[in-house]
Amino acid sequence: MSQRKTIHISSLRPTYGICVVGTDTIVDVYRSMPPNAFSFDVRGTRGIDISILYNPTTVSQPRGTSIKWPLDKEVEVVVTPQAPSTNVNNIKVKVSYYGIDGNTTLGIAMLYLTCVELSLDVDTNRSGTVNKNGKDKASWTWGPDGQGAILLVNCDKDNVSSKNMDNYDTRISKDEELNDFSQMILTVRGPDATFHDFKLLLYIALSDLDKVGVFRQQAGEDKSQFKHVLGTNKLYHEVEREVGEEEIVFYVEGLSFPDVGFSGLVTINLSLQDNSIQGLPVFTDTVVFRVAPWIMTPNILEPVEVFVCSVKNNQTFLKEVTDLVERKSRCKLTVCDIIDNRGDRWIQDEMEFGYSQAPHKTFPVVFDSPRDGQLRDFPFKKILGPDFGYVTREPISFYDICSLDSFGNLEVSPPVTVNGKVYPLGRILIGSSLPRSGGRQMTKVVRDFLFAQKVQAPVELFSDWLNVGHVDEFMTFVPSSDRKGFRLLLASPNTCYQLFEALKEKGYGDAAMFQGLGVGQPTINDILKNKRLKKENDYFQVCIDWNRDILIKELGLTEQDIVDIPILFKMENGFADAYFPNMVNLVVLGKDLGMAKPFGPNIDGKCCLEQMVTSLLEPLGLRCTFIDDFYCYHIQLGEVHCGTNVRRKPFPIKWWNTIP
Amino acid sequence: MSQRKTIHISSLRPTYGICVVGTDTIVDVYRSMPPNAFSFDVRGTRGIDISILYNPTTVSQPRGTSIKWPLDKEVEVVVTPQAPSTNVNNIKVKVSYYGIDGNTTLGIAMLYLTCVELSLDVDTNRSGTVNKNGKDKASWTWGPDGQGAILLVNCDKDNVSSKNMDNYDTRISKDEELNDFSQMILTVRGPDATFHDFKLLLYIALSDLDKVGVFRQQAGEDKSQFKHVLGTNKLYHEVEREVGEEEIVFYVEGLSFPDVGFSGLVTINLSLQDNSIQGLPVFTDTVVFRVAPWIMTPNILEPVEVFVCSVKNNQTFLKEVTDLVERKSRCKLTVCDIIDNRGDRWIQDEMEFGYSQAPHKTFPVVFDSPRDGQLRDFPFKKILGPDFGYVTREPISFYDICSLDSFGNLEVSPPVTVNGKVYPLGRILIGSSLPRSGGRQMTKVVRDFLFAQKVQAPVELFSDWLNVGHVDEFMTFVPSSDRKGFRLLLASPNTCYQLFEALKEKGYGDAAMFQGLGVGQPTINDILKNKRLKKENDYFQVCIDWNRDILIKELGLTEQDIVDIPILFKMENGFADAYFPNMVNLVVLGKDLGMAKPFGPNIDGKCCLEQMVTSLLEPLGLRCTFIDDFYCYHIQLGEVHCGTNVRRKPFPIKWWNTIP
Repeated sequence: MSQRKTIHISSLRPTYGICVVGTDTIVDVYRSMPPNAFSFDVRGTRGIDISILYNPTTVSQPRGTSIKWPLDKEVEVVVTPQAPSTNVNNIKVKVSYYGIDGNTTLGIAMLYLTCVELSLDVDTNRSGTVNKNGKDKASWTWGPDGQGAILLVNCDKDNVSSKNMDNYDTRISKDEELNDFSQMILTVRGPDATFHDFKLLLYIALSDLDKVGVFRQQAGEDKSQFKHVLGTNKLYHEVEREVGEEEIVFYVEGLSFPDVGFSGLVTINLSLQDNSIQGLPVFTDTVVFRVAPWIMTPNILEPVEVFVCSVKNNQTFLKEVTDLVERKSRCKLTVCDIIDNRGDRWIQDEMEFGYSQAPHKTFPVVFDSPRDGQLRDFPFKKILGPDFGYVTREPISFYDICSLDSFGNLEVSPPVTVNGKVYPLGRILIGSSLPRSGGRQMTKVVRDFLFAQKVQAPVELFSDWLNVGHVDEFMTFVPSSDRKGFRLLLASPNTCYQLFEALKEKGYGDAAMFQGLGVGQPTINDILKNKRLKKENDYFQVCIDWNRDILIKELGLTEQDIVDIPILFKMENGFADAYFPNMVNLVVLGKDLGMAKPFGPNIDGKCCLEQMVTSLLEPLGLRCTFIDDFYCYHIQLGEVHCGTNVRRKPFPIKWWNTIP
Repeated sequence: MSQRKTIHISSLRPTYGICVVGTDTIVDVYRSMPPNAFSFDVRGTRGIDISILYNPTTVSQPRGTSIKWPLDKEVEVVVTPQAPSTNVNNIKVKVSYYGIDGNTTLGIAMLYLTCVELSLDVDTNRSGTVNKNGKDKASWTWGPDGQGAILLVNCDKDNVSSKNMDNYDTRISKDEELNDFSQMILTVRGPDATFHDFKLLLYIALSDLDKVGVFRQQAGEDKSQFKHVLGTNKLYHEVEREVGEEEIVFYVEGLSFPDVGFSGLVTINLSLQDNSIQGLPVFTDTVVFRVAPWIMTPNILEPVEVFVCSVKNNQTFLKEVTDLVERKSRCKLTVCDIIDNRGDRWIQDEMEFGYSQAPHKTFPVVFDSPRDGQLRDFPFKKILGPDFGYVTREPISFYDICSLDSFGNLEVSPPVTVNGKVYPLGRILIGSSLPRSGGRQMTKVVRDFLFAQKVQAPVELFSDWLNVGHVDEFMTFVPSSDRKGFRLLLASPNTCYQLFEALKEKGYGDAAMFQGLGVGQPTINDILKNKRLKKENDYFQVCIDWNRDILIKELGLTEQDIVDIPILFKMENGFADAYFPNMVNLVVLGKDLGMAKPFGPNIDGKCCLEQMVTSLLEPLGLRCTFIDDFYCYHIQLGEVHCGTNVRRKPFPIKWWNTIP
């Protein structure tokens, strides 16, 4: 919305003004009109449109050969230049005033105008390149019919010798980095002399200093050089224009992701200021960008790269995972060595892979959790790099961090529709305490960040009944070719008891668990006789059912979308640990699932738990690979999902085409 | 939106549950059904509605005498109790399972329910009293068709011996204060024994601790005693219920006005928690309040009380103001004595009177400016009191305060309509620097507060061209009986020059200003000959015209809504001071205007400026009283408006009936 602009003319002396091609200027014919004037007419030289605005209920349009308008304040003269002037003051507008007889000329007011073309343009139509004269460039709307330009947070590190992400410095380090920026073009046309009397100023709001950075491409020989002109410590920039220079290209980067107090919208203003009247702006133009959010990728998206740690006692596990990743799912495997992990195997908990996307560029962004185990430097040192971004959020106090801040407690659903409301990028799922006061929660700065991204509206689940307290201990999503394209797998003590009861009925009560592990081997009968274990699992089942009800409601699921996966938990210090390796804590690589070998009771030489889960999942087109993680992960309270991490392809749908 | 709730039943053993009158509970008939079961039917005792939800495209409703439903996961059983139970487990629901032949009963699952009535209710329909079972009580909507309860910020001081506002303590000091609170009623009906096994918890979000306070009326004898139960340092409250107690009344106060990061919405939650399963909630209810905003009152509203300072040299002025207030406009006059003002006469700048309103109560609230001259303690010490609220905002650093933070720079327009958008409470107007970087601005904490009130969307004007830099130096609003009910008065150097030119033409060029004041007495000819003064005023006129264009656009005005008031400014250190007493800086008391006596050129014994302004305003039904403020205000760079302050009646329209 541009400023209304009025030029006040006078019959006593000529008036000089500047106006901008395509914008309306009101010519005030009243302020200095000659005494006794009753009507007026107005004529202009070529190159300017003159129109009369009036209220037809109180003023009638002059008819016939007369073009004289009554001097009534409800009649307004508007001029709109069509092209930039070739010379200063080359456009003339003449207003003649007449007496009550309609013939006597009582005075003439002359207005000399210099017209300039002036426009700040960005990629409002999201094509990847700047479009000129985009409508509503000062506003931003969501959805397939939406418009408005987009910025990437320049959080990768294109110069490997740099110490921090590219959004932390005020230089453009390498040519490649240019692709991370959005272009903004300032078009200036008009007599060069005009720009001695008027200056062009770009400026941003104080609150946007840490949100946006703008660089200017140098003119002439220095085209490969870029000067930092706005953002960080620069509120405004006086644009220097060479004689005849008509297009000045700026490169714009986002400095921060949306967060509490930052909607993601950033405004850049241009003003043309009159040096002769203390720099009063005579024209302003405004463009708005939205900073691209950080987006998570659900299990149904194609895997690109799998991460796993190599530690002292997990070599067999590592070999089985390698086999699954390289031979079966055929994606890239990256092993994080002991030097980088220093014994910390929980790579799922250390970071979450996502991406950030603009029409001109997409790159993956790793979100480093505030967890900070021995893997804490890995995302920054080994993942951040050229075209691989990095973001983190840390609470002020280390004491604000708990186990629920690990990213095993941060998942995202496939696309869902809930009572007609579409979430084309799914919904983020985080574990929390019950909706009452007290209990462990993910730290506020991380939750705030996740909510602020907007496009994957988070749902809070109840995971504080578990010792470790992560949502991936009781739920996951797997792809399916039918229905909604996925199933929700939910851990189910109830299902396990039902299976064991049925097996006992069939005479398999003496079948024992944990065979070959060198630990106690309880039989089905032992487990069914353990009343304390049953009571504990009844409570755990209620906790899972609580989440089931939330998931059904918040993801618009039905019972058919859910598969119950048998599990037992046991109570330790009032919280749940898995009683046997927890299959639902699995890694999804396309149609291949890598899950913990449960070491369930052996029936006719086969594990009844593996048998049951395979029979549930194979009909969906999935292949189950059971991996022994008993000593290297399970007894340390994690399973296959906790020990792996997967980078996936972005969604096919663009986030700006969604409506959050 | 209440939580989805499912009860899982079993054919092996009876299930016991609790449900809440009027809310649906899903009965899961699938999880523990007998093997080979093919269909089921369900019956219940009186007092409970049972309905079957199914997908008619895949399941057909049983016909004829059969009421057996297929065991298909798309068939759901929903029970809804109609009344609270008289005894524990008095409602029975029986599910019978049948084999494929439809006759053989394979098993029966029994569900025993205790039904309770449980509801948290507030004044959602804005009648001033609590309405039971209000729909959508967890949401809040604006406008005449809107709904949702309202809280007052309890920022008055009902106990005069208290040291601070009532929202600063956690007690209810006097019975009168109760009227400042909104009621919230918890209804609990059901067998008393149930409430041994379940506890009732009220809780709020961490972020609402400093937004809301809740008190509970004691039961029985102690009904006049109130206990602080939520807010400040209390996140949750376990509700103690006496045997047979069915209604518990709570009193709720707002602690903070809307501001950055606080929309004004406050949520209070109730949960019914099952002691037997680690306090897992089985029912939750939620109510939402909006904290009433602080509202400013424009000049067109009826005056209630006028404030003016008594200082050393303003006794004549004081007498003239007293005369205007008490004899002409007949409202209350309050003189702030030298003991309270310590020589600071700028009472307009120290504070702004507004009000806060809820359906049950309205009271005035003074907004204390961060200006802090010698009057700084006056609002807190002398205005704050019973049913007179107080609010302030101060920047962290004293150095962030400038002259633009005085409340002569804070005004509000009458109600306006702009391109169809109605502002029934007008728009706040604040002076600022130009839309570019640099220059003086009102401090961020005050601007943030004003924008956050939402109902009088602020417009920023350009006042930084003036030394003092207040909007009341170049504009004000006066009531009129015609058109929109008001006129905008704008200071106009141009109008002054036109008047002087016309008088010179008529031979009055030697008429002199400032007669009888003992200062230099320039004539009309002197002024017209002063080229420097003319050039300065041309620039000041451009600055005012800049504001004129903004005001026309942002308030939807036309030229006919504006009256130009003659004035001249002079340049001092690059900024404008009034050249003669500035009439536009006036006080409006109904149809009476108190304005600075301009001491303009005397024509036939009368001041031509007074004459002109009277002739412009009298036709609107206004009476002008010219008050000599030359030595006591004008030469210290202020006029009548700066030296007075007016408390006015609230708007007739309620803010919640507007749509911001």
